[in-house]
Amino acid sequence: MKSKTPKTKQPAEKKAPEQPGLDLATLRERIDGIDRHIQELIAERAQFANQVGKAKGKLAAAVDYYRPEREAQVLRRVVDRNDGPLNDEVLVRLFREIMSACLAQQEPLKIGYLGPEGTHSQQAVYKHFGHSIHGLPLSSIEEVFQEVEAGHADFGVVPVENSTQGTIQSTLDMFLTSKLKICGEVELRVHQHLLSRNGRIEDIERVYSHPQSFAQCKAWLRQYLPKAEKIPVSSNAEAARRARNAEDAAAIAGISAANVYGLKSVAGPIEDRPDNTTRFLVIGRELFPPSGNDRTSLLVFIKDQPGALYHVLAPFAKHGLSMNRIESRPGHTGLWQYAFFIDVSGHVHEEAMRHAVDELDEYAQEVKVLGSYPVAIA
Amino acid sequence: MKSKTPKTKQPAEKKAPEQPGLDLATLRERIDGIDRHIQELIAERAQFANQVGKAKGKLAAAVDYYRPEREAQVLRRVVDRNDGPLNDEVLVRLFREIMSACLAQQEPLKIGYLGPEGTHSQQAVYKHFGHSIHGLPLSSIEEVFQEVEAGHADFGVVPVENSTQGTIQSTLDMFLTSKLKICGEVELRVHQHLLSRNGRIEDIERVYSHPQSFAQCKAWLRQYLPKAEKIPVSSNAEAARRARNAEDAAAIAGISAANVYGLKSVAGPIEDRPDNTTRFLVIGRELFPPSGNDRTSLLVFIKDQPGALYHVLAPFAKHGLSMNRIESRPGHTGLWQYAFFIDVSGHVHEEAMRHAVDELDEYAQEVKVLGSYPVAIA
Repeated sequence: MKSKTPKTKQPAEKKAPEQPGLDLATLRERIDGIDRHIQELIAERAQFANQVGKAKGKLAAAVDYYRPEREAQVLRRVVDRNDGPLNDEVLVRLFREIMSACLAQQEPLKIGYLGPEGTHSQQAVYKHFGHSIHGLPLSSIEEVFQEVEAGHADFGVVPVENSTQGTIQSTLDMFLTSKLKICGEVELRVHQHLLSRNGRIEDIERVYSHPQSFAQCKAWLRQYLPKAEKIPVSSNAEAARRARNAEDAAAIAGISAANVYGLKSVAGPIEDRPDNTTRFLVIGRELFPPSGNDRTSLLVFIKDQPGALYHVLAPFAKHGLSMNRIESRPGHTGLWQYAFFIDVSGHVHEEAMRHAVDELDEYAQEVKVLGSYPVAIA
Repeated sequence: MKSKTPKTKQPAEKKAPEQPGLDLATLRERIDGIDRHIQELIAERAQFANQVGKAKGKLAAAVDYYRPEREAQVLRRVVDRNDGPLNDEVLVRLFREIMSACLAQQEPLKIGYLGPEGTHSQQAVYKHFGHSIHGLPLSSIEEVFQEVEAGHADFGVVPVENSTQGTIQSTLDMFLTSKLKICGEVELRVHQHLLSRNGRIEDIERVYSHPQSFAQCKAWLRQYLPKAEKIPVSSNAEAARRARNAEDAAAIAGISAANVYGLKSVAGPIEDRPDNTTRFLVIGRELFPPSGNDRTSLLVFIKDQPGALYHVLAPFAKHGLSMNRIESRPGHTGLWQYAFFIDVSGHVHEEAMRHAVDELDEYAQEVKVLGSYPVAIA
């Protein structure tokens, strides 16, 4: 639960007070009553969702009435209302699944992603759209764009920033030519584990890992393995491979490496910051209305000249819009020398952003709005 | 929705009647009210679940109060009550997730499975336990058994029957020596797709596939590709590999092969029977009480002698217990010549089954109860 605005509602604890006298049978009876009630409400919700679909046209497919800004609002309210005992992440997941089920009653959304099944991309698809969708595992990021453009997929999910590899340039480059819009973002936590052959921490003399993974687990290592030698290698897979060959070595890597390399988990997750994430973009054919807490991604083509960067940044500062990210890319044509990918807080349908983009447009060769979309939730 | 016992409750349609006058804003307001209500109930349910945990001991880990027979009863009631509009499978998934979240409040269940991540085994884990668990991908079925035996995993999930490969002997053989109990079963649908290089059905002259996959899609092929040549190959992966090399060929395979071999989906799922499934067993260290609709797995060691099979089957028939499966395995030791793996309807704590097992015990060298567990739901 995050800090939230004050509210008048009584905390949930008040509704289910500790009654130490309740025996198991009574507790279960109460839970059964709650379940019956939840089920009735879910059915009612599905009925209303059906009517939303019909309001948009007879037996509309999910894609015709899927509204990412509306889903974001619903989920933010869930977080805002949450008084426990379940945490925000779990509740958001439950409500995503309920919305996903209600939406999929006629024809589920078709979501293209970078396959194969079981990748982080597939996890991101389920996290964002719930499980009541039809997933299409594709063989490249380019193909995800193609399938969405051709209408074979309603939306696509592509990785754009990875905490170990940084920005995924091939995804950004697709936007140089594609007409698709960014309709959402998904953040997925990446967990690090300490892996070794026998799983015993007392045997570990050396730890292999990629320098970035060492950095992510610095505090943990200082506390639990202060004397172990830290040996940087080119990747976490290489680290796991090396750890496999010695009883006194360990690797920092994702838990799936444990299986691939026959290692045991000594401890995990061991990253110091719980926000060690990979970021994905949801791409579609449409720009959706504001949700109230949005981000806009822009692609700005400019000539290389003195003060270029300043001119790109100024309009946003002037209109009080905070910039989340900027990334420059060398140009591919003679028309422009540089392209900047910029993420700014706000939606292009909002006043301040519209003014900023207009002003930027006067200076730049071209400004392309890649999308305005709800900031990732939980 | 399956056929169910009569009930007095009004169908859900009555509660949310078609009101064509309702505009989008009103519909959404109604849905928001329902969501608020659902959230309150989920919080209340989590509180009660906490009390169940405390009734079993202060801050009990999930494994201490996880009750598969109770979960099965809850889910059967969900199916039994279901009047639509959502189907049973979707509702069961939602309630599994709610139970999973409530159970995981202190320490989530640790579930070992045959990795890597993204396999059908992982899907089976999530289907059975929900997503609020800690999954441990392991490198072999043997290791899944070991980790559960050692207590590093609370439960394990292992495949036991596969619609294309039949029984997975390596899983059954583990029970010859293991002390673990079967605590549940999971059934996962397996879908077949028609894949080709360009995805156009009109170009297809030949279809490659494993004979069993052809058999599964017979009616579909007769209807949509009556003239195409059917060429049996050793596996669906081989079929996909061959389809990759020709414009006029297609393969029947799982959708994930589309990605691996760069093929497009022409159509799918195309299997004739929607119940094309893989079966998994949940293994643990404990035998749980009856849920009311259970299956018992027995391992019976007998000497090879005339009428052996009859003697094994007779007690079940006598006590009105229906047998779901029998599988004989050659013996490994001199003590016995044959082992039979038998699945029968019922629970060993029930009268009829106890009598049948006692009678069988008199005849057999040894009868090992591998487990009594709820029949798979949705």
